[in-house]
Amino acid sequence: MRKLAALAALALAPLAARADEGMWTYNNFPSQKVEQAYGFRPSPEWLKHAQLSSARLAGGCSASFVSPDGLVMTNHHCAHSCIEQLSTGEKDFVKSGFYAKTLQDEVKCPEIEVNQLVEITDVTAEMNKATAGLEGQQYFEAQKGAMARLEKACQTSDALRCEVVTLYHGGVYNLYKYRRFQDVRLVFAPEFAIAFFGGDPDNFMFPRYDLDVSFIRVYDGGKPAQMKDYFKWSPAGVKEGDLTFVSGHPGGTSRQLTISELEYQRDVALPERLFSLSELRGQLTQYQKRGPEEARHSNATLFYVENGIKALKGRFEALTDKAFFQSKVKDEDALKAKLGQDPQKAKQFLPAFDAVARSQATLKEIRKPLRYIEQGGGFQGELFHHARALVRGGEERTKPNEKRLREFRESALPAVTQALFSTAPIYPEFEVFELTFSLTKLRENLGADDPFVKKVLGKKSPEELATELVKGTKLADPALRKHLWEGGKAAVDASKDPMIEFARFVDPDGRAIRKRYEDEVEAVQKKNDEIVARARFEIEGTSTYPDATFTLRLSYGSVKGYQENGKYVKPLTTIGGAFDRATGRDPFALPKSWLDAKPRLNLATSFDMATTNDIIGGNSGSPVIDRNGQIVGLIFDGNIQSLGGDYGFDPAVNRAVAVHSSALVEALDRIYGAGRIVKELKGQK
Amino acid sequence: MRKLAALAALALAPLAARADEGMWTYNNFPSQKVEQAYGFRPSPEWLKHAQLSSARLAGGCSASFVSPDGLVMTNHHCAHSCIEQLSTGEKDFVKSGFYAKTLQDEVKCPEIEVNQLVEITDVTAEMNKATAGLEGQQYFEAQKGAMARLEKACQTSDALRCEVVTLYHGGVYNLYKYRRFQDVRLVFAPEFAIAFFGGDPDNFMFPRYDLDVSFIRVYDGGKPAQMKDYFKWSPAGVKEGDLTFVSGHPGGTSRQLTISELEYQRDVALPERLFSLSELRGQLTQYQKRGPEEARHSNATLFYVENGIKALKGRFEALTDKAFFQSKVKDEDALKAKLGQDPQKAKQFLPAFDAVARSQATLKEIRKPLRYIEQGGGFQGELFHHARALVRGGEERTKPNEKRLREFRESALPAVTQALFSTAPIYPEFEVFELTFSLTKLRENLGADDPFVKKVLGKKSPEELATELVKGTKLADPALRKHLWEGGKAAVDASKDPMIEFARFVDPDGRAIRKRYEDEVEAVQKKNDEIVARARFEIEGTSTYPDATFTLRLSYGSVKGYQENGKYVKPLTTIGGAFDRATGRDPFALPKSWLDAKPRLNLATSFDMATTNDIIGGNSGSPVIDRNGQIVGLIFDGNIQSLGGDYGFDPAVNRAVAVHSSALVEALDRIYGAGRIVKELKGQK
Repeated sequence: MRKLAALAALALAPLAARADEGMWTYNNFPSQKVEQAYGFRPSPEWLKHAQLSSARLAGGCSASFVSPDGLVMTNHHCAHSCIEQLSTGEKDFVKSGFYAKTLQDEVKCPEIEVNQLVEITDVTAEMNKATAGLEGQQYFEAQKGAMARLEKACQTSDALRCEVVTLYHGGVYNLYKYRRFQDVRLVFAPEFAIAFFGGDPDNFMFPRYDLDVSFIRVYDGGKPAQMKDYFKWSPAGVKEGDLTFVSGHPGGTSRQLTISELEYQRDVALPERLFSLSELRGQLTQYQKRGPEEARHSNATLFYVENGIKALKGRFEALTDKAFFQSKVKDEDALKAKLGQDPQKAKQFLPAFDAVARSQATLKEIRKPLRYIEQGGGFQGELFHHARALVRGGEERTKPNEKRLREFRESALPAVTQALFSTAPIYPEFEVFELTFSLTKLRENLGADDPFVKKVLGKKSPEELATELVKGTKLADPALRKHLWEGGKAAVDASKDPMIEFARFVDPDGRAIRKRYEDEVEAVQKKNDEIVARARFEIEGTSTYPDATFTLRLSYGSVKGYQENGKYVKPLTTIGGAFDRATGRDPFALPKSWLDAKPRLNLATSFDMATTNDIIGGNSGSPVIDRNGQIVGLIFDGNIQSLGGDYGFDPAVNRAVAVHSSALVEALDRIYGAGRIVKELKGQK
Repeated sequence: MRKLAALAALALAPLAARADEGMWTYNNFPSQKVEQAYGFRPSPEWLKHAQLSSARLAGGCSASFVSPDGLVMTNHHCAHSCIEQLSTGEKDFVKSGFYAKTLQDEVKCPEIEVNQLVEITDVTAEMNKATAGLEGQQYFEAQKGAMARLEKACQTSDALRCEVVTLYHGGVYNLYKYRRFQDVRLVFAPEFAIAFFGGDPDNFMFPRYDLDVSFIRVYDGGKPAQMKDYFKWSPAGVKEGDLTFVSGHPGGTSRQLTISELEYQRDVALPERLFSLSELRGQLTQYQKRGPEEARHSNATLFYVENGIKALKGRFEALTDKAFFQSKVKDEDALKAKLGQDPQKAKQFLPAFDAVARSQATLKEIRKPLRYIEQGGGFQGELFHHARALVRGGEERTKPNEKRLREFRESALPAVTQALFSTAPIYPEFEVFELTFSLTKLRENLGADDPFVKKVLGKKSPEELATELVKGTKLADPALRKHLWEGGKAAVDASKDPMIEFARFVDPDGRAIRKRYEDEVEAVQKKNDEIVARARFEIEGTSTYPDATFTLRLSYGSVKGYQENGKYVKPLTTIGGAFDRATGRDPFALPKSWLDAKPRLNLATSFDMATTNDIIGGNSGSPVIDRNGQIVGLIFDGNIQSLGGDYGFDPAVNRAVAVHSSALVEALDRIYGAGRIVKELKGQK
């Protein structure tokens, strides 16, 4: 708990960002601070090039362009679903790894979309104008409408993706324009055993020995996309003390939440999520024992669940650390006291804190129906997900763009159809498993006597209903889904498919609770978080960075060790260390390729490294670059101390964890014989 | 959350007990209060008779003597393990129920021990004398020694069981002398489907329709034990508004804990226990799908896990209710303020609060090794449990009584050997399951690099080690366990059984962390809780009742409905209501015996009932008696609002849930044809 004590001390310091802290937007990067700390000042050109060389996987990861021919580097765990979807009972690429020896051998990933951020426009004035003076439902509708209009105007073709991004909890709105790549092919992935060496026990730990990498390639018109901007490979890599930048997409942080929001996280949201994930983890662990195929079908889900548990536990421990939480309370009290000194400001800003608190009380009241009827808690599995997208998509597309549910606005449709038309296999047994589990939780959480539960289950058991729906539906066929989507509302309404009928049957209940949430919680929270954010602006301006929102950020830091339990943890591990740590038993078993290659390897090669860059979940797959803008590593994790980073950054022990660029080349070259990729990375044609 | 708001209001009222609240000791029962509220004053004779007619199952339940021939009534779920242990693949009594048509058909339960409290002696002065002026380890050793001496002097034969009971957190010490029955035989149990109708979804809910009963019989010298005191059956039963008493063994409450102790429960102990139980629940749910035998072997464990989850979630929700917790804080602040007004008292009492807080901080620090190395978290399963009892029992018995670990003091040995010599079957596959799960959690919680984890696992996976130990050991044989126990330390030391060797291998680590816990946490906490308790005494005296400690208590109340979500919940259900609620699908499927008997039943018969008696876990199986001291019901649960009762009692909605005596007779007579039992209950020979 050393880390949290340190965090607590920090939180008492002034609110502005400290050394190495910050997930900065590209249009507000503190180049001067970097110069002061590290003697290097990134130029506007340097920043523009790094921005354009960075990439995002729409599903929730970061990546980078690493060759002029559209080669993209990301984590193995970011492409895990694709690798699994391309596998069969005979050929399991998760287990054996994948390498396309030639360009022709590269295979399309059914669901991966790569985005490149090409333009940022400030739209704060337009957004504020649209919602001026409005409250509740009207506020929400006006905001949603303005976003849909701005996005649609920006998105002039399906090759673009435009998103209005809320920064500083509504202090700033930016319109982000992305170039979108939907033809993405798998090039290389190592064996899962080395990509995730140490498994769940070593996850979020350091020292570490993982080759958590995959290479994919974006195509345009059936050919490798030609990229003007991409990161070159550093010939030398980095060593201890060297300056590092990480350019990626941190998913979300809660550093600027109010106390009532943090309390809701601590007392309700995090523990309940952990109870549910823990039970699912238990079920999955045993499901895996049904057989090798069942294990293969559920591996990726188990990984995400275990990863989620560890991450959320870290956050829960941060918030239940009394000293740390008290420091957050003092912070907010100090802010309120400053505002209170000026009657004008007091009137303008202070009521927002209470309004946010009321929104959290309402959320606590409606959280269970919200989660289990609408937000997926009660109906898990691909098939239901597809059915709901078809039912809702059919109806929503009959409405004007700005009146639709957010996920069906014009700018979002390409992502919807990519998922809907995906050729990824669907496993009926696993679908029954997931739907049974979630229907059981629906009944447990709402109660057997709840009218909605009775409506859904009638006299059936959860397993009976799940089996009936999965066995009866034909939605596993992507052609049928395409047909129904293209037929629109009429086709969906006419469908007698049992899963479609079921999704239609529960749709009004989902929409009703969602509407209540949007009007009474989300709208109130957004509007008042915005007011709180403006209050902070009054004091800090943009001298600080906005909470993460899965949009592109740049952080700076250096390769650096730390103290843990009274011992110094060195920032670099070696390939030899992996051999020392191996036990031959999963999850500490090295793959055969590594054991065979050992004599050929330089065991002193740097393997993984720890840096002080401020990152969080979503940054997985981010490039680590040096002052020359060249690749020196690949982010894949944070250390255990970084998990409290959701609420505050502690430079003493919070570390990003990356694969060192030297290990990537050593492995590609000497273990996997992937010379084609090494040459491409090094620009040798 | 209505209940907690009400609780919060209550907690601000004076500290003394309110109407119907209280789990009173028999030697401090507020007869006058009962008279004021209900116009009936229990006489000393009435109380003595009720005390002697009450019974405890040593494993953790309550019960009552209901005939002069040693017939004992308790819950089905209290005898569940026995019913399962007597079952085989061919004859599953959990599923089909059990009825011994004649006395000769009654079958011995391998592990049930019944206790009857025959005498209570105050030993506060002796205990205080023994520990006067001592701290830490010395305090702990002196206290343990004094308890062992007092118990040994009392326990003049194996037919007695003596326990020094700590009341008011050390404000009072009593010596409880029990008559012990170890020959206990199963007489009757209904089908699980009706004993636990509604399953986990309906658990802790009301209205309810469960016949959660079993009858067992205590034997003495091979014949039914002859009981001078037992409860007679009420001819008429109770109706709404009638006075009810519950005599039973509430397991534990936390109503007098200090804020630092409650915070530890809220922030650490409860959530971590729930994470772990949730995962185990998930694994068990899927383990059950391996086959009908695997399901049968794991049913009881799954029941206890699910029951525990629901109960602990109720407690967690109570403590995370901000208004309720704040009221507890105010309570303690008020007590401290009163003490602070008198410099003498301030000096004497106030430092104890800080000392308790420090003990909780230490506990937080060492909780993981404590739980996973010593307290069973890392090594689950019968076989390891037996091995540890043999290894430790061998060593401890070479020491003087007062120097031993508490569980091996002379007065405790009969319970140890009863478990050790039990003929209950052990299921190897389930043993591997439990040991694998717990070893995995050991590694997860201490970390793969922890020296103890490395010592235990070496290069093996948890599953590999578990399989090896379970397959290799011969401890499933009770004769071998008896042989090793009777051979003492020498026999155990000479044993090459792998599970014995393993238990011996990890023993020093367990003892080391336990010692640290006892010296730095338990001793500090006990001593200072005692000081806090004395501080409360200064203000309240024994006008209140002590926190529950799994010792005999009497509570009073009445049959009474309550308001829930704006609706009135009636306090009585009928047998007909069960047929209305049935869906034909587990857990809402009535057994065939009920469906067949329906035409013969009086459907208007009262089935289950809610009363205002203040009870908690451990009270399961308690008799509900009327002013005549006659049986009118059988406690088996509390409603969902009662779960916060660990921390405070809310008379508006906190309800005990019992089977009505009329339903018991109706079912025995008309469904199960158990006329023999009905006659015995009604005293018709």
